[in-house]
Formats: sequence, C-alpha cells, structure tokens
Amino acid sequence: MAGISKSASPESVIYMDHAATTPVREEVLEAMLPYFTTHFGNPSSLYSGAEVARNAVDVAREKVASVLNCRPSEVIFTSGGTESDNAAIKGGAAGRKSQGRHLITTAIEHHAVLHSCEQLESDGWDVTYLSVDSDGRVDLEELKRSISESTSLVSVMYANNEIGSIQPISGIADLLRSDTGENSSAITFHTDAVQAAGALSLNVRELGVDLMSLSGHKFHGPKGVGVLYVRRGTPFVTQMAGGGQEQDRRSGTENVPLIIGLATALELAERERSELVARLTRYRDQLFEGIIETVPDCHVNGSLTARLPNNVNISFDGIEAEPLLIGLDLSGIAASSQSACSSASLEPSHVLKALGMSDERAMGSLRLTIGPETIDEDISTVLNVLPEVVRELRALSSGVSRP
Amino acid sequence: MAGISKSASPESVIYMDHAATTPVREEVLEAMLPYFTTHFGNPSSLYSGAEVARNAVDVAREKVASVLNCRPSEVIFTSGGTESDNAAIKGGAAGRKSQGRHLITTAIEHHAVLHSCEQLESDGWDVTYLSVDSDGRVDLEELKRSISESTSLVSVMYANNEIGSIQPISGIADLLRSDTGENSSAITFHTDAVQAAGALSLNVRELGVDLMSLSGHKFHGPKGVGVLYVRRGTPFVTQMAGGGQEQDRRSGTENVPLIIGLATALELAERERSELVARLTRYRDQLFEGIIETVPDCHVNGSLTARLPNNVNISFDGIEAEPLLIGLDLSGIAASSQSACSSASLEPSHVLKALGMSDERAMGSLRLTIGPETIDEDISTVLNVLPEVVRELRALSSGVSRP
Repeated sequence: MAGISKSASPESVIYMDHAATTPVREEVLEAMLPYFTTHFGNPSSLYSGAEVARNAVDVAREKVASVLNCRPSEVIFTSGGTESDNAAIKGGAAGRKSQGRHLITTAIEHHAVLHSCEQLESDGWDVTYLSVDSDGRVDLEELKRSISESTSLVSVMYANNEIGSIQPISGIADLLRSDTGENSSAITFHTDAVQAAGALSLNVRELGVDLMSLSGHKFHGPKGVGVLYVRRGTPFVTQMAGGGQEQDRRSGTENVPLIIGLATALELAERERSELVARLTRYRDQLFEGIIETVPDCHVNGSLTARLPNNVNISFDGIEAEPLLIGLDLSGIAASSQSACSSASLEPSHVLKALGMSDERAMGSLRLTIGPETIDEDISTVLNVLPEVVRELRALSSGVSRP
Repeated sequence: MAGISKSASPESVIYMDHAATTPVREEVLEAMLPYFTTHFGNPSSLYSGAEVARNAVDVAREKVASVLNCRPSEVIFTSGGTESDNAAIKGGAAGRKSQGRHLITTAIEHHAVLHSCEQLESDGWDVTYLSVDSDGRVDLEELKRSISESTSLVSVMYANNEIGSIQPISGIADLLRSDTGENSSAITFHTDAVQAAGALSLNVRELGVDLMSLSGHKFHGPKGVGVLYVRRGTPFVTQMAGGGQEQDRRSGTENVPLIIGLATALELAERERSELVARLTRYRDQLFEGIIETVPDCHVNGSLTARLPNNVNISFDGIEAEPLLIGLDLSGIAASSQSACSSASLEPSHVLKALGMSDERAMGSLRLTIGPETIDEDISTVLNVLPEVVRELRALSSGVSRP
C-alpha cells in the first residue's frame, strides 16, 4: 500500500472510520492533478486541446468497465453514491412505470435508497421493505412472496454500511430471473455496492445486477464522484437532464479530474483486493475476539461470517455511543456509531432496529471500520484503550467513583 | 491575475472558449489540496479529526454567501450547474405543485433548464417558452401576459452561454412581485447565472431571485461542483434524497475539496471583477470591430450592449462552423460554435434559431469567449488569423483555387 501512509491521518490519529470516508491515495491525487490545470478542457469541445481530457475520460471508463466486467458504455459517472442511488431508484422505476408501480427494497438500506423510495411512495408508488434476520440478511423466500405482477424494481444493498452484512446478490438475481419466468427481464435489479467496493467482487455479470452504485471516496478515490452501472437494455430515465453527456443518461460537464481519480483508485483497489481482504479479516477478527474477551456484557451486531472484512460493530450494555466516541476520540481513535450521515442524529440506527434490537442496545453501538493503512499497533492500541473507556463510562453511569 | 498564467493552456494555445470551461487557478488548487489527503474527514463525522473539514465547508459557505449577499444557510452546494438547474426547476416546481402546474421559461435557456422543463411537461406540466428579440432579450410584456393563476415557477437565465445576452433579472423580479399582487410570493423565480459569475453582480437581494444556479468551472474553480441559492422560505423539494446533508436539500457526502475550491474561486472572481470586466470589454470590442472591419459579409449575433464582456458571437456568410473551427484549431486558437454540450450536434443552435436566424446563418456562427489570461497578443493573432481562414474557406466553397 505504498500510496497510503499513516501521515494521511493528521497527528497520528488511529482512523477507524473507513466506512464513512477514506483519504485519497497519493497515486490517485497525482493522476488527477494535471486535469485541474494543464488539461482543463471540456471533453465535449471539438478542438485538439480538449482531446486529452476526452481521451482520459474514455480510459477511465474502460478501467472501471474492466473491474466491473462490463462494457464501457454501461458505466455512467455521477457525483457520488447518493446520486447513483437516487438515479437508480427513481430513474430505474420511471423506466418501468408503465408496467407497474411496485418496488421492493430492504429495511437496512442506506438513506439514499430509503428516502428515494419514500419520495416515490409520495408519488403513489407502493414499496415493500424486506425484513432482515438477526445477522442482517434478507430472506429469499420473503422476497419471492413479495414479488407481484406490478413489481418493476428490486433494490438490495450488496454490503451494509453499519454492520457489514453481505447479501446474496447473485442468489437474488437468480430468483428474480427464474421467478418472473417469461417476464425474465421485467424486474430491474439494483444493488448499492458503495460499501462493497474494495472488499468484494464487483463483477456485474456474476452478480447478475442491472444497476449498481459505487462511490469514489469509499475506496481511496475522491469525494464527489461515483458510478452507476446501467446494464445495456435496462429501461432508465435520466434524473439529470441537460447537455446529453454520458449518453444522455447523466448530463453535466464531465468532472474530468475526479473521474480519473475514481478510476485510478478502483483499479488499484481491485489489484490489491485479495491481499487486503486477508489482512483486514485478520485485524477484524482480532478486534472482535479481543473486545469480547476483555469487555463483559458486549454484543456483536450482525453476522460474524457474511460480513465485510473491515467492519466491527458491537454494543456495550449500559453505555451510550456518544460518550464512548468522545472517550475514544480523546485517546486518538476516530470511530463512529452509525453512518456518518446520521452521526448527529439522536435516533437509534434504523439498521440495528431492523435486526430486532432494543433502542438501548442500538444506542450503545460502536462501529470500527479499518482500512489499508491500519497496522498491528493500531489494533493493540484500540484493544488497550477501548476496555478502559468502557469501564470508566460504566463506573460513571453506575455512580461508582473512579479509582 | 497572478493565479492564471499562459501556461495553463498547453502548448501556448490561445484559449477562447471560456464559456465552455476554464482552468483551475493556482490559488484554488492550493486551497483544495490538503482536503484530499490530510483533512479528508467526512464533515458529518463527530470526532475532532473531521472538524477541520466541517469548519472548512462552513467557511466556504460563508464566502459564497458574502458574494451573493445572502445567508450561509441559503447556499446549497451541488455537483455543478446542471444539477443546480435540474434541482431548481424540478425541486422548485414540486415545491409549488399544489398551487398550479404551469412554468414559464425562455426559448434560449441552457439545455439543463430546457430539458428539465420537458421532463416536467411529460409529467403533465404546462410550460411557456418566452421568445426573445433579435438581441436575445425577453419581452417583459410577453412575460406578463404569460402569467396565469397556475404559474408556479419562472426561470430566466441571467446571461446566455452562446450570445452573452443579459436579461433584465431585477426587472422580471419586480414584475413578478407586483403582478402577483397579494400572492406576492406565489411564483418562484429562478435564474441560471452560470455564465454571469465573474462578470456580473451576483447580489441576490438586488436581483430579487428565489433560486440561482452557479457552476464552479466557469470562473476558474473546479468542474463537478456548483451552487444552488435557495432563498429562505422558498418551497423546495430535494432532488437528491439521502443522508440529509445541506439541510436536507442536497444529500450526499460533502465534496469538501471542491466546495473549498469553488468558494475560493468565487471570492477571487468577485474581488477582481470590475478590473477584469473593463479589460475583457475592451478586448471583446476590439475583436468585434476588427472582425467586422476585415471580414466582409459577417453578422454579429446578439446585442452589442446588453452582453457579457467576454462574449463574441458572429456568423460568416457561406461558411459552416466546423471547418472554421478546424482552421482556427490548426492555427492554435481554441474556439467553439455553440455550447460545448452541443458541440458534436449537427443541429443549428436553438439559441440562434430563437433570434430568428436562418439555419444557414446559425450553422456558420463562431463563438469566441475570452478570459483573464487573454492578452493583447492573443487579440491581434486572432484578428490576423481569422480573416485569412474565412477567406480560404470561402474560396474553397466557391470553387476558386487558392492563390
């Protein structure tokens, strides 16, 4: 991981919030830089000076297509995961609205999916929110029962951003294709793969999806750029009307530097994936085992097996997340309790609630998400600091004075 | 203009397409850089490391608000002009849909506005497209006659991207406020100010607008970031649902570096505006006068007075734009015929057609848009090269061999 060094985190903070965002890799920044200034041309312009920018966007699209095992023309660059999700849900639904106004998604999706579905509900669409088991996984039988003749779109996230649970995407695709029989292409299947990138295979042919969302800043690319994979032939209504860029599926001057940054980061992430996954899995399991061993009355949230290699989510009885996070922050450990978007919220996580947890346990959850710059020392520091912080907080809340 | 040097254009190209895009200024790039790596935190995260990013976005918002003379809470950061226009038209219309489903815009808007209106038309909205006179200006009387009880939104661009014509925005605002009488706030007024930034005042209080779109890369900020000004109290339905960023008006992880870049560029552009406008106006008029003097049978497109200081648009009888642009490109001059988005189109410009031009004259138009790095020498080079290229093309098309 030559490109990611400890210096990326200011003042040697142990950064354990990679699910929220990641630093841009050096190679990625270097690849982007010339396109802010020297090669600043608008890719749609005809003169030779703009050709450099146009070609660079083409190359970036081919790199992404190569990782996704799709055609370059199926790769749409967006402004990020949220836009990709909004476009997939609204644009995918609008593309099939004549055949039916029923969507199926899950109760644990990112808010970009959930709130897009809610907007469609207020426009008269009917939405089924699939439940999940205590491991955070959907039940294929429930999905099967939910499908009706008016179902036009199914959206199931690849890996959850809070508990890291991985859904059986290719199994769902098989079910949708077989269940709909003659209408085998009648239901559009979208997956939000924002948290999966860099950890799981993004091969869309194997996954069997029609639409897939990615976000650059989750795999050491820049913020403000994403991908929406749109399988050829998938009915889709653009949500960004205008000059007709991205084959009229996403208008707006191409964000040349950031598109190049995303493609560079994705290519590197894919190249390093298997080595990284092995390392992160080891660290993750060390964290789980170490915490369970040293802290009494704690509970693992989500599955221990069908789980992202970098995700630890655990609740501590009698403790709320906020003081815990402050305690860790004071010790130089950056962590979170739920998604960054909801960090300021006082509500318990909708994901943990969907797992059947009490409000109390949901409010006491800690999410640690490690990354390529995590080292052995970070794991031991966290395993030294965390039990102590938990112990102090419990002592405070039970009225026992500190030793 | 310390930050913008000739070296921004590769190989000393004379870049005369500033309406398409502009290079990022050195100061802007410098301001952005730390936020890709060192201060990469997600502004929504709670730990102290993310505070730097959060505070920087706050400061950027205050800078933009200062230029716009509005409250920071009225500044929404988007992914660019196209998103701002889409959000203004669709989000502004949706915000008032209960009161009526009629919009008014003009025939010469950017496609981001026009195609957004067309999408609403396909959803059952009624849209009036105001005509313009031969100077490219709307008629306030026609606007007045077009307003009905069901009119919920009026969108008129501040300055046109092709011919630089400037619309009487504050006059339109006055008319909308006076005409609607007791329903003085019943019509939302949007202006697409993407081309105006850096040249005209963006004081929203004086302009009297409710919504205003800006795009970073038109004033030497980065591509992929824009602003939507939303006046407090304006009904607005978010077009980007999700984590609730930007006061729930535009979800998605804040694009910290680019937001900082946009704010830096806008602050610099405003500071240098009056000096720059004087210089560009002089150059623009030298170009117009020089071309008219040396090239027979040419026609100025649009007004010579109510016009952006950096815009030259002129048609040459008997010549098509494409070979003209190729000829200029070969001489190191980067120019365009219409908007960059439409460059690859074989259709005549909808803007020039709206001015009442024949297809032939519209297809023979040349747009030269100068900028802060334009120097005296560039003007004389263009005035030497252009008449020669036109002469050769005319000779070729009339079958006369070259001398």
